[in-house]
Amino acid sequence: MATVQVNFFSKSMRREVSFNALLPVDLPVIPGQSETAIQQQPLKSLYLLNGYSGNQWDWITFTRIRELADRYRIAVFMPAGENHFYVDDEDKGELYGQYVGQELVAFTRELFPLSTRREHTFIGGLSMGGYGAIRNGLKYAEHFGGIIALSSAILPYKIANAEPGYSDGIADYKYFTRVFGDLSKLEGSDKDPEALVMQLKESGALIPNIYMACGTEDFLLDVNQRFRDFLLREHVPVTYTESAGVHNWDFWNDYITLALDWLASNEPSEQ
Amino acid sequence: MATVQVNFFSKSMRREVSFNALLPVDLPVIPGQSETAIQQQPLKSLYLLNGYSGNQWDWITFTRIRELADRYRIAVFMPAGENHFYVDDEDKGELYGQYVGQELVAFTRELFPLSTRREHTFIGGLSMGGYGAIRNGLKYAEHFGGIIALSSAILPYKIANAEPGYSDGIADYKYFTRVFGDLSKLEGSDKDPEALVMQLKESGALIPNIYMACGTEDFLLDVNQRFRDFLLREHVPVTYTESAGVHNWDFWNDYITLALDWLASNEPSEQ
Amino acid sequence: MATVQVNFFSKSMRREVSFNALLPVDLPVIPGQSETAIQQQPLKSLYLLNGYSGNQWDWITFTRIRELADRYRIAVFMPAGENHFYVDDEDKGELYGQYVGQELVAFTRELFPLSTRREHTFIGGLSMGGYGAIRNGLKYAEHFGGIIALSSAILPYKIANAEPGYSDGIADYKYFTRVFGDLSKLEGSDKDPEALVMQLKESGALIPNIYMACGTEDFLLDVNQRFRDFLLREHVPVTYTESAGVHNWDFWNDYITLALDWLASNEPSEQ
Amino acid sequence: MATVQVNFFSKSMRREVSFNALLPVDLPVIPGQSETAIQQQPLKSLYLLNGYSGNQWDWITFTRIRELADRYRIAVFMPAGENHFYVDDEDKGELYGQYVGQELVAFTRELFPLSTRREHTFIGGLSMGGYGAIRNGLKYAEHFGGIIALSSAILPYKIANAEPGYSDGIADYKYFTRVFGDLSKLEGSDKDPEALVMQLKESGALIPNIYMACGTEDFLLDVNQRFRDFLLREHVPVTYTESAGVHNWDFWNDYITLALDWLASNEPSEQ
Repeated sequence: MATVQVNFFSKSMRREVSFNALLPVDLPVIPGQSETAIQQQPLKSLYLLNGYSGNQWDWITFTRIRELADRYRIAVFMPAGENHFYVDDEDKGELYGQYVGQELVAFTRELFPLSTRREHTFIGGLSMGGYGAIRNGLKYAEHFGGIIALSSAILPYKIANAEPGYSDGIADYKYFTRVFGDLSKLEGSDKDPEALVMQLKESGALIPNIYMACGTEDFLLDVNQRFRDFLLREHVPVTYTESAGVHNWDFWNDYITLALDWLASNEPSEQ
Repeated sequence: MATVQVNFFSKSMRREVSFNALLPVDLPVIPGQSETAIQQQPLKSLYLLNGYSGNQWDWITFTRIRELADRYRIAVFMPAGENHFYVDDEDKGELYGQYVGQELVAFTRELFPLSTRREHTFIGGLSMGGYGAIRNGLKYAEHFGGIIALSSAILPYKIANAEPGYSDGIADYKYFTRVFGDLSKLEGSDKDPEALVMQLKESGALIPNIYMACGTEDFLLDVNQRFRDFLLREHVPVTYTESAGVHNWDFWNDYITLALDWLASNEPSEQ
Repeated sequence: MATVQVNFFSKSMRREVSFNALLPVDLPVIPGQSETAIQQQPLKSLYLLNGYSGNQWDWITFTRIRELADRYRIAVFMPAGENHFYVDDEDKGELYGQYVGQELVAFTRELFPLSTRREHTFIGGLSMGGYGAIRNGLKYAEHFGGIIALSSAILPYKIANAEPGYSDGIADYKYFTRVFGDLSKLEGSDKDPEALVMQLKESGALIPNIYMACGTEDFLLDVNQRFRDFLLREHVPVTYTESAGVHNWDFWNDYITLALDWLASNEPSEQ
Repeated sequence: MATVQVNFFSKSMRREVSFNALLPVDLPVIPGQSETAIQQQPLKSLYLLNGYSGNQWDWITFTRIRELADRYRIAVFMPAGENHFYVDDEDKGELYGQYVGQELVAFTRELFPLSTRREHTFIGGLSMGGYGAIRNGLKYAEHFGGIIALSSAILPYKIANAEPGYSDGIADYKYFTRVFGDLSKLEGSDKDPEALVMQLKESGALIPNIYMACGTEDFLLDVNQRFRDFLLREHVPVTYTESAGVHNWDFWNDYITLALDWLASNEPSEQ
């Protein structure tokens, strides 16, 4: 397992950015355990997004993702979300959506020995990063065979058409407008997961496999259920799990394991 | 010399951010050179800001700042500017100015053995970071005994009252409005270095010592000369140097050395 | 929580070395969770040692130690063991024991806001690092109020008086001689935990509180039981736990949590 | 330019090790400078070794190697020498020579998009690392088209047949024996650069192009001149430069630039 910190100039972000990577190209030798042969074929990859207030170190330090990357032989790339919900800020020239949905995929494939096949490429995240995985997994559906969305902050359900003065206790109207743009135009836009799904259906494009999980005591349970219901109504396959839990790392550490299990047993067929 | 990468939750930025630090608390032992005794008194500190398109790694990898930190026994802290000119984005809740001018100073003093005296605390930068050093050195003048401003992008001279459609080849009206706010209100605001100087003068507050340098072939020469002329007109002490050079690391590597020389020989008297 | 990578010149090692640190001087703000006030008193500290084949990244990436450091408000320092069992190599001038038992404690206290009290200072580790914690916790008992020893490779029980040709499947006579020196002189030396305990008892010095744990399927179970039996026979207090488990991160992730629980509830009385 | 920190399990070292890398796969966009098109062909590579007392951060923080890597479009890999002169410690199972001369070359070629051609692959270093570059560039001559050796600590000239009690002010008989093995067998061994050259000549194998430089006030000048004289006597091509200078980073920063100039203008013909 190579654990890697990368710093590079992102054209989408117009500046040097940092991400962390886990690359199971070698295997640790632990006394008392037998060594496994390494598969030398191109690696599967998972782009894994942090939540609000976190950065590229969250997943690697708060969960046991390193071991999972080894166990499932999957490269994991963790960029920094910078509280911008992985959507583009065109005015400032920080195209977070394009960065994680497109440039980072291309750049990591250029730098590392990765499979370039859609069915070997996944995007996941928690909370803000769960939204980011859904939004960019759908927006750039041609790149991703699967989406892992944990405790997702599918905020368009809450803030679409919000008016000045709106606040949900975490952030307010000004913040949401800064990040999502004109809130009266959010519904139906490419930041609205339902609109993105409908667009893929209409064009006959492939929709990534979707895995969702949320704790039953999570304050975001309602929007996760609502998106699940929408997917079911639209006959879009989704694996959805709920269990006792709140919005914390105990839940995410457990469910990233289950999600990678799901990935391994539901590998998209070759297309 | 301890070289340190720090990641912490910034309240001003509302998220985990990273900065690099150089802390001359020990000394390398190099064969053939005699070991110097280490002074154990609290360290002087320099907050050193990168330019547009760069991040916290620029100074440490593009210049020989590590050796200079050792030679001048000064701790150096390098945050990431993220193309935001070190001014606050209140809507998004990313208070870059408050972060580098206030929180980072307080946080590093809490974490490391630094002098808490104004005359031992400095802020510097290049290009966008030169502007950031001038702006935040003046805005938070109670924290800083000196300002080092290299090839500074003192953009208010250029973009104040700019109108839609304005572009300077690097960025455009939308970007500048995103970063600096309403451009028709820029003049006289706390993002206008001249206004900040006048305010300090009027209140009788101490103005940090200022060191400026710019290459004679630099595309930002005019705004550097203009600010120098303003300072001279207002009888604000400034050390200003020009020499053949463009907007690049050859110039900055040379002048950060000269600037630290200047710092050492112009240490503010105790006040 | 500041997560920190440090690189510095170690006099004990005669070269630049790297360690990782977790410093709970701030707290993350997670949406949906209330913010806790930060205690501003000097931090307790734990020097946490990796096993054979690992380095300073093991604990931080394989376990959830970051959250535990936050929860228990304890600074954690993770140096790299470099397969040398945390004992000195005097010929080469790499004094691993002195480095982790003495210099690193002094250096981190100089660099960070740590409590300098013995009863706030702990050493722990797993496998090779469990031995390292026992050996250096006893050798430098004046620095440490407690020892956490998980699945400890207390090898002197196995290799004392080993002869050329000896091999235990992991390493051989030449390796053990390189690391531990003359194996015929190991018993009774300062690399023999029993001898170190007897010496402390004889001199009337304080012995650190000891926490030991080992999996019942661990290939090192016998030496852990043997050292426990010795401690009990000598009336040296020890908290010893066994449960189903092998020599892997599942066990260590569980037991570092239990060990920090034990630390918190068995804080040494002030002396 | 991607700047990368890698941590991986080295089989030659039997443990996790860290190295730094510079990979000019992208280019920074600096305002006022025009963007250059990136060549997408596999990168040339330089394995660059630190001196005694340093580690993988030396070259990147003490020199301007990052810019040079960009300018010359060459990937640079910087492992840590750990005061072991890049020769194998077979007893401990730390095969430093095999690590930098063989495994690191293979591993980086597996992980990154590098040219696998000998004439695109170089090894260099300073002081202890200069010796390491000469020794391993010759020992693994089939991998390297060129050697850059600055202020090289070609110690076999000094310590061969040294006797107990020997000390050169930096290290002593015990240290040298620990690192180089039996000093009475050093001459003619694969740690003796002259012997390695003779062996290549006898077998008719290609000898890498050699670039040497040393300061005229350097305390290692004599051994550099002696090896140059040997090469000239043996009609082995060498580019040798001396100029005013001592054993420090001013010299190495200047000469790594000149050495890369030399590399670019003396690219080995395809073979």
